[in-house]
Amino acid sequence: MTIARQIHLVRRPKGKPVQEDFALVEAPVADAADGEIQVTALLMSVDPYMRPRLDADQALDAPLLGGGIGRVTQSKNPKFKEGDLVRHSAGFRETFVSDGRGVSVLNRDPELPLSVYMHALGGTGVTAYGGLLGTGALKDGEQVFVSTAGGAVGSVVAQIAKIKGCYVVGSTGTDEKAAWLKGEVGIDAVINYKKENLAEALKAATPNGIDVYFENVGGAHLDAALPRMNLRGRIPVCGMISTYNGDGEGVKNLFSLIYGRIRMEGFVAGDFPHLNADFLADMTHWLKSGKIKYQETILDGFERASEGLIGLFEGKNNGKMLIHIAD
Amino acid sequence: MTIARQIHLVRRPKGKPVQEDFALVEAPVADAADGEIQVTALLMSVDPYMRPRLDADQALDAPLLGGGIGRVTQSKNPKFKEGDLVRHSAGFRETFVSDGRGVSVLNRDPELPLSVYMHALGGTGVTAYGGLLGTGALKDGEQVFVSTAGGAVGSVVAQIAKIKGCYVVGSTGTDEKAAWLKGEVGIDAVINYKKENLAEALKAATPNGIDVYFENVGGAHLDAALPRMNLRGRIPVCGMISTYNGDGEGVKNLFSLIYGRIRMEGFVAGDFPHLNADFLADMTHWLKSGKIKYQETILDGFERASEGLIGLFEGKNNGKMLIHIAD
Repeated sequence: MTIARQIHLVRRPKGKPVQEDFALVEAPVADAADGEIQVTALLMSVDPYMRPRLDADQALDAPLLGGGIGRVTQSKNPKFKEGDLVRHSAGFRETFVSDGRGVSVLNRDPELPLSVYMHALGGTGVTAYGGLLGTGALKDGEQVFVSTAGGAVGSVVAQIAKIKGCYVVGSTGTDEKAAWLKGEVGIDAVINYKKENLAEALKAATPNGIDVYFENVGGAHLDAALPRMNLRGRIPVCGMISTYNGDGEGVKNLFSLIYGRIRMEGFVAGDFPHLNADFLADMTHWLKSGKIKYQETILDGFERASEGLIGLFEGKNNGKMLIHIAD
Repeated sequence: MTIARQIHLVRRPKGKPVQEDFALVEAPVADAADGEIQVTALLMSVDPYMRPRLDADQALDAPLLGGGIGRVTQSKNPKFKEGDLVRHSAGFRETFVSDGRGVSVLNRDPELPLSVYMHALGGTGVTAYGGLLGTGALKDGEQVFVSTAGGAVGSVVAQIAKIKGCYVVGSTGTDEKAAWLKGEVGIDAVINYKKENLAEALKAATPNGIDVYFENVGGAHLDAALPRMNLRGRIPVCGMISTYNGDGEGVKNLFSLIYGRIRMEGFVAGDFPHLNADFLADMTHWLKSGKIKYQETILDGFERASEGLIGLFEGKNNGKMLIHIAD
């Protein structure tokens, strides 16, 4: 029997979450019984998708739903041994017991920091890789436009496209991210959509049109991209953040799909099991050779999890937001 | 040397075309020289897509652009022999000479009326067949929604889907077409979108969702269909008539594409050469066995071509509008 900490939601946030919406709770954790494992948290992931859950799916007075990486400290399940690194979606708990469902062993490359398995080598990375190369069917040397190219997914998309010899244009909403994309990441053109007329800027930045538009935004971004699409262009649809709050302009240029024979197709991270081996091999190589750059903001200490989640909606992160609990 | 009639555009219509916009002109036609054929018109096609051409592409004081079926009356081109039936896009001319480009021999099934080669066995039919089975990748027994199901393309789409054992819902704008679709064609549910709330009526009519939405309209039709789409549903985009005049509401429900993994894809009639043999075999069989029903309005006499075109925009046709010149 162990005592371990959890982060609970104690009331539903009104607008942006605040500290009073959460509580740090101590609770007993049993030893692993037959078929079970006990896991201690090492890293936890803090993500934008968690916010809407707080309004509905997330139970009150229960551990926050979420994913992370932990280490197996006890095992009575033959699929795991003590010391194994595992991925899990068991929520914001310092230590927990599981029957192994939803938990998978993580084969870490010792030359890479563990944190990259929470973004470039995690769901973020496979979303970018599968969406661009699978759904988007990118070919070497094509013309690519990525919306929110400074974001966790968008920045990986932009870099994979560069690795594939493509001409890459990205949109972003801050000068700081624009500078990182141009200087560090080395994409071909960056549009700050908050400062520029998006449609005009995109037209000027894509003299050879667009073969693949990686869609994260919807609305005005999609209307700007559609008339620029080349024949048989593809629009893998990863997100449409401009529409999530029910506002945003309707899309008016969809007739461009017809004569352009454009394909728009939605996908989620879990759609690419057939690409997983290639993804892990390629991304590991690209990270080790410095071809994929990333940004991360890591807060140290389990008790800072709610601070991390709150900070995400105040723009306090640069790249992926993580909570570090132990090594 | 022959004298033959042509229909000319003599001024650009303001709004709906009127008789004064056109003229019946007599002009000499030379005999076929080496490599040429002379063709006499039998049937001519009158289509909605001709209207926008009158504002721009169509030259003044020249034969109206358009397609039809004729018979070769002289041939000095080894690809054709006298008496051959041919398809052509030589415009509204009673007799014409051609070097054979854009003209193809028509292998008519003697049991079918020639007129069906201008719709169900012509561009209309291959658009429906290729869009539904090729782009739409329809599987037997799926749930199908067709917009403007009473139209030339939509009615063929609805009937192919029924032949494939599907549950078929169609939208149309008149009670007369709704009655024909329900009674003669036998689709499962019809929505008169001018009288009913489209989104509510579509929800009620699709208890098992939609696997394929055959898109002819865009706008509110697409917004109604998107939330009803089943996982991995497909939206072949044939037309978006609600947007052609630059008005119409923007589309707001595109985020449904993401979790539904929906694919939207544009196409045109010419995209299916790989399906052409199957199309001709299937459609000939379906027409001869009465499985595909159609409506056509045939005006008799070359001089009635402009009347036919004008009538099209006054709703004077039931199904495909054709001009009959000779047998």
